[in-house]
Amino acid sequence: MLNLHLPEHENSFLQALARVPVKVKKRVPLVHHITNYVVANDSANAMLAVGALPVMAISGKEVEEMVSHAQALVINLGTPSEDLMASAVMAGKSANAHSLPVVLDPVGAGATQYRTKNALRILREVKIGVLRANPGEVGSLLGYRSPMRGVEAERTHTDSAALAVQASRSFGCTVAITGQTDYVSDGHKLSILYNGHHMLTRVTGTGCLASSLCAAFAAVETDLLVASTAALGFLGVVAERAALKGKGPGSFRTALFDVMYSLGGVELVTSLRLEVKKV
Amino acid sequence: MLNLHLPEHENSFLQALARVPVKVKKRVPLVHHITNYVVANDSANAMLAVGALPVMAISGKEVEEMVSHAQALVINLGTPSEDLMASAVMAGKSANAHSLPVVLDPVGAGATQYRTKNALRILREVKIGVLRANPGEVGSLLGYRSPMRGVEAERTHTDSAALAVQASRSFGCTVAITGQTDYVSDGHKLSILYNGHHMLTRVTGTGCLASSLCAAFAAVETDLLVASTAALGFLGVVAERAALKGKGPGSFRTALFDVMYSLGGVELVTSLRLEVKKV
Amino acid sequence: MLNLHLPEHENSFLQALARVPVKVKKRVPLVHHITNYVVANDSANAMLAVGALPVMAISGKEVEEMVSHAQALVINLGTPSEDLMASAVMAGKSANAHSLPVVLDPVGAGATQYRTKNALRILREVKIGVLRANPGEVGSLLGYRSPMRGVEAERTHTDSAALAVQASRSFGCTVAITGQTDYVSDGHKLSILYNGHHMLTRVTGTGCLASSLCAAFAAVETDLLVASTAALGFLGVVAERAALKGKGPGSFRTALFDVMYSLGGVELVTSLRLEVKKV
Repeated sequence: MLNLHLPEHENSFLQALARVPVKVKKRVPLVHHITNYVVANDSANAMLAVGALPVMAISGKEVEEMVSHAQALVINLGTPSEDLMASAVMAGKSANAHSLPVVLDPVGAGATQYRTKNALRILREVKIGVLRANPGEVGSLLGYRSPMRGVEAERTHTDSAALAVQASRSFGCTVAITGQTDYVSDGHKLSILYNGHHMLTRVTGTGCLASSLCAAFAAVETDLLVASTAALGFLGVVAERAALKGKGPGSFRTALFDVMYSLGGVELVTSLRLEVKKV
Repeated sequence: MLNLHLPEHENSFLQALARVPVKVKKRVPLVHHITNYVVANDSANAMLAVGALPVMAISGKEVEEMVSHAQALVINLGTPSEDLMASAVMAGKSANAHSLPVVLDPVGAGATQYRTKNALRILREVKIGVLRANPGEVGSLLGYRSPMRGVEAERTHTDSAALAVQASRSFGCTVAITGQTDYVSDGHKLSILYNGHHMLTRVTGTGCLASSLCAAFAAVETDLLVASTAALGFLGVVAERAALKGKGPGSFRTALFDVMYSLGGVELVTSLRLEVKKV
Repeated sequence: MLNLHLPEHENSFLQALARVPVKVKKRVPLVHHITNYVVANDSANAMLAVGALPVMAISGKEVEEMVSHAQALVINLGTPSEDLMASAVMAGKSANAHSLPVVLDPVGAGATQYRTKNALRILREVKIGVLRANPGEVGSLLGYRSPMRGVEAERTHTDSAALAVQASRSFGCTVAITGQTDYVSDGHKLSILYNGHHMLTRVTGTGCLASSLCAAFAAVETDLLVASTAALGFLGVVAERAALKGKGPGSFRTALFDVMYSLGGVELVTSLRLEVKKV
């Protein structure tokens, strides 16, 4: 299905999307991760698969220096602790000082007060470029009572478009909400992405992978709506192709990395099912 | 081999076993893990594969609240530290207060005094529902000199049936011992499971997976002998089928998650090689 | 290509190499890892695949006792912290006291001052048997300005042979440098290994796997040049065979573990492309 929802004048948007994965392969951005120990391995492998370089450093004794060599920073709050929060703030401020894009993944915001508070602290103390989350997490950060059970995305929300726009204006950043349909807004435009596969909910950390891809793509594309739309679209198309190879979550997961490695920019945009609106 | 060892009147037991994985898929229990960083990813993926929701939270600042939303708790002592022990006790007490089943995996008890002491502390301070361990670990907790080398299960013990019964009476909980043959006892009955595959010893953390499955199954089945027998039987049957697909430990591991995703309750019991005895 | 570069009198060297993986399977050495949370799972699975037993223990309360049961120690500085450094030194001294071989993987030395300083501290306070690293890391430890970006190996250095010899003399240990070509020196001899596959750079932690293999092999072979040459050659041959099965980094990684499990000593040496020189 070739971009049926896109008006003619959006072709330049598509071309911009197509260039992002190509630029990642060319520039090999170093993406610093402050992340959780559950998905760190998959996140690192996703970076290598798309042609970026991952680095996971969390000690307060080195994060500032490591960030100074990086092209993007991911702050993923999947297994928060006081030490990790201190390092995350330090890394975030360093990234701001070096004008690197920062992606925040507020894993489980709403599931505990500690997680909500931590994510809001990062949003307050660090200039975030992209907030990548699921609808429940974004709702929690906006102060809605949210039905989070644990940290895995639930796919039942229907107001994600409005959430994305509201959050982007409230937090002054691009907001990328993943779910059965993905929504990306920078407060001016809204991308709606229909790609993806339900098997993504049977592999842990696919939301974290989306965040890492947003960071790798933001490292080479300053328009964060373009970068985040390309990242979520990329993962959605990858998932669709991986589902053709993998008959269960084990082989699907293996296939995710194979397809991430081989999917090019043109293939990406010709497989996207995407709407872009002004908001 | 269809339950040749089961007397006629045990058919209700089999029916109960068959219902457990079905109930997991229906109720989607949230299983909180205090676990080690080596196997956390596999444990989370196992939960998603069988239809449960994993959450890994370890900070003392949130474990009580996270447990209050969960339906079961796993305490896995694979990479112990003082902070982790404090969180484990806190989470365990919270689980007790909310009447959640708690599964203890005393990884490497007997390998170091610290591990033995930590496991005994949890058994003393938290009401454990299921102790899932290998024979060497259970022996160590009972005070036997045990030949533990590191944390991986050895498959050489022959007295596991007696160990399971003794431990269940000593610790006042269901005890699930894995090995070449698996033994589950609640002090009144003893399940002996002949399923499994030697390739399970070539993938790290398959014991931890057994513990996580015990927790997911205990979340939906209050008879912990039934829940634990179903869990160990499930992993055993899964391993046998995965071994048909995977020619080495890499592809076997991938297949484990594929088969966990697809194996139903009826298929489970028709593949079980099981004896149940009064003790 | 059967050892075309080897002079006739080196056949005993080849026979020694062939015996190493066989001895691992026979003796099942316990390999204690002080390692990072990104690759711990893969490292453990690599140990099980080749027939060794992994154990990951990091608490200062148990590392000395755990090491006392082990046959080798890996100190991998991939995600350093003050606590981990303290445990690493303690484990290292314990390994020295028990005459165990210690393998140091100074992940990201040169990427931050903290990492360089930590690695040099280990080299100063612990007697290292094998330093396994990439060229940039070794260069940094020798005081060269090194172009490290993050922690993943870059394959652009051409002076690795000289680096290996110099480092082995400076640090008084065997040095195993991995890259497009691998170099191992004990200060007297230099092994040059041409096996390997570029896909190794698309899976995180393959350098860490090389270090773990060096440790497992050093546990059963006291000549550390033989052990390290066998380990790097083993991973190189494994990678070549895995690349025939895996079409992308996901399936390549799965195949790595399958091939590690099945590759025997004779197959190893008949597939090696190796030179050994006096230096």
